[in-house]
Amino acid sequence: MNILILGGDGYLGWPTAMYLSRRGHDVTVVDSFHRRLWDAEIGAESLLPIRSLRERVALWSELGQPRIHMEVGDITDWDFLEAVVRERAPEAIVHYGEHRAAPFSMLSRRHAVITQVNNVVGTLNVLFAMRDHAPDAHLVKLGTMGEYGTPNISIEEGYIEIHHEGRSDVLPYPKQPGSFYHLSKVHDSHNIHFACKVWGLRATDLNQGVVYGVHTEETDMHPGLATRFDYDHVWGTVLNRFCVQAAIDHPLTVYGKGGQTRGFLDIRDTLACIELAVLNPAAPGEFRVFNQFTEQFSVGELAEKVAEAATKLGWDPIIENIANPRVEAEEHFYNAKHTKLLDLGLQPHYLSETLIDGLLETVRAHADRVDRALLLPSHTWTEGWIGPEAKEQQGGEVH
Amino acid sequence: MNILILGGDGYLGWPTAMYLSRRGHDVTVVDSFHRRLWDAEIGAESLLPIRSLRERVALWSELGQPRIHMEVGDITDWDFLEAVVRERAPEAIVHYGEHRAAPFSMLSRRHAVITQVNNVVGTLNVLFAMRDHAPDAHLVKLGTMGEYGTPNISIEEGYIEIHHEGRSDVLPYPKQPGSFYHLSKVHDSHNIHFACKVWGLRATDLNQGVVYGVHTEETDMHPGLATRFDYDHVWGTVLNRFCVQAAIDHPLTVYGKGGQTRGFLDIRDTLACIELAVLNPAAPGEFRVFNQFTEQFSVGELAEKVAEAATKLGWDPIIENIANPRVEAEEHFYNAKHTKLLDLGLQPHYLSETLIDGLLETVRAHADRVDRALLLPSHTWTEGWIGPEAKEQQGGEVH
Repeated sequence: MNILILGGDGYLGWPTAMYLSRRGHDVTVVDSFHRRLWDAEIGAESLLPIRSLRERVALWSELGQPRIHMEVGDITDWDFLEAVVRERAPEAIVHYGEHRAAPFSMLSRRHAVITQVNNVVGTLNVLFAMRDHAPDAHLVKLGTMGEYGTPNISIEEGYIEIHHEGRSDVLPYPKQPGSFYHLSKVHDSHNIHFACKVWGLRATDLNQGVVYGVHTEETDMHPGLATRFDYDHVWGTVLNRFCVQAAIDHPLTVYGKGGQTRGFLDIRDTLACIELAVLNPAAPGEFRVFNQFTEQFSVGELAEKVAEAATKLGWDPIIENIANPRVEAEEHFYNAKHTKLLDLGLQPHYLSETLIDGLLETVRAHADRVDRALLLPSHTWTEGWIGPEAKEQQGGEVH
Repeated sequence: MNILILGGDGYLGWPTAMYLSRRGHDVTVVDSFHRRLWDAEIGAESLLPIRSLRERVALWSELGQPRIHMEVGDITDWDFLEAVVRERAPEAIVHYGEHRAAPFSMLSRRHAVITQVNNVVGTLNVLFAMRDHAPDAHLVKLGTMGEYGTPNISIEEGYIEIHHEGRSDVLPYPKQPGSFYHLSKVHDSHNIHFACKVWGLRATDLNQGVVYGVHTEETDMHPGLATRFDYDHVWGTVLNRFCVQAAIDHPLTVYGKGGQTRGFLDIRDTLACIELAVLNPAAPGEFRVFNQFTEQFSVGELAEKVAEAATKLGWDPIIENIANPRVEAEEHFYNAKHTKLLDLGLQPHYLSETLIDGLLETVRAHADRVDRALLLPSHTWTEGWIGPEAKEQQGGEVH
């Protein structure tokens, strides 16, 4: 299948490109490299050294794999995106091409605005490009489980049947996102839903949990094919961050009480989910929502699991509860449904000690690259960036 | 009370400013005059001649009324808005400062992007300015009943108690907006709700119905205080448009079957609702939602009412059902709750023949200003702008 991957230079975009390429799809990656720019702004760097996209694409061909096409540009630039969609005429568009960090969006007004404008405008452009040049294509959009927040009832996959005063309807599941980033994903969901209704587009919104791991069959083919591994307080997700802390004998820092429960999945399952969605497209006019994760854990439980695995390696991990920089419930009901991808045939890789062991070893091998200053939050949900740069971060240009 | 009115040059902003000023509040109007710019783009003009904001503010003082302060600038410009909020230190911010036309937002990609970026960024700036400089102020934000769409259950005021699998929660009412404009208001609602939760701001989201009329006690004090009256297919709301059509012996054009049912209210009730909200602020951290309308009508019923009033004046109105440019249900269940403003003391002006008579007479007095070409839709929800300019409308700059 002819597939466009927006955000093909990213943590998941690049492994997805290789995975789909190796399985016979004709893959084009699109990226603006904004993520690398933002890294520079924060002063963060992937724990695993990563090559440029151009080098990785070239290496992929050198290894005898099918050619991956590359288009460099920004999807918020209509002229660029329109030309790509018109010329590539994709059958599926996998849309990772967004800002993806809650903490980044909470640094300051400027960061909130950048995040929302970037994600909303990019996705609007994708929808209009599909309407005009690829109306039969299937949009596979990465959303987040964080769109739902932590309601006191079970979380359904996108829609809920509501009975009210003797009548009933199936309506979009109410959203309670917890950061300006998560809000941008909710905005996208509403925009995409509308475009499906009005223009008959087909879309699948993948409300993904927190992804962990860096090893896939394809990244393991050559060190030059590695994908990024973020451990800093802005981009690093919780399991990855705990592993880095354990590897350098830093306390595993749990935000608040640690009862915050979320959905999680292995990076390999992300790739499988994407292909399942692509191979089983939504119907014309359908806005389909899948909850894309395999297991629920609380942050405290994850810390325990990492500590246990580290102990077995003979390390000496400590867990420390620190002040929560976020505004969120730290003890709450959480039961999120996630059967639709299983029904399509997903075979999950559950979080086992084996995996944590492997991750810990990988991390320790690169321990000299860890910048300890990036492990702890530099800002809070209530105050934004803490420190002398706080003031200037409010102003400045949006784009 | 010290009140900032964003969008103080608009159809409702200007009458609200006079109303609150006359009732003893210290009013500052803020406007960028974008609405007048967009008028020029569409080639539309208010049926009633309107003076510049500067002239209206001066006239208000000349008539012996309290001074209304004026700040000219764009709320999407952070430096401008921050300075205004810091210097004026408002106790309440009435936020009309947004793009407000569904048809405008559906003209092209460019118009969709302008609408969403303008509204989302402006409102984010307001929230950050409040957080930094007016944390105790009360935000009174104009939303729209169109955020809800037409669900098959009763529409509650902002929240709904959902019982699900033996548990229950009160959650934000699910939204199904019907245009990129309405979507922008849903984005705003989510952003504001979050800011209340995280920063303890207080806000009231007024999900307003379709407003009709141009006469208020204050606009009637002098012709130079008139507010705009839009009748064109982009900015004109349905009752106003029907009145203009009747006054120039043009068929009253009902989109599709005419069973589309919405909430409506008299412009005088809008002003009263705003003051009620201002005088009864939300609590710190509270995101309060009122449905702001007084009666429900279908579009077909409204056409009948206008035709009936016109007939009594000896005119000869015809109703014509034309192809619906929008994508919407034309026959549907509709029952929207609207008791919270009544509970605060709202005394509605219901739509009576008297009012339609008066509106028809006002309109006929200005019939020579009507551009008939602006009465019928130039674009559809599915295709966007129809005609040779369609292509170029996609591209161009966002701002």
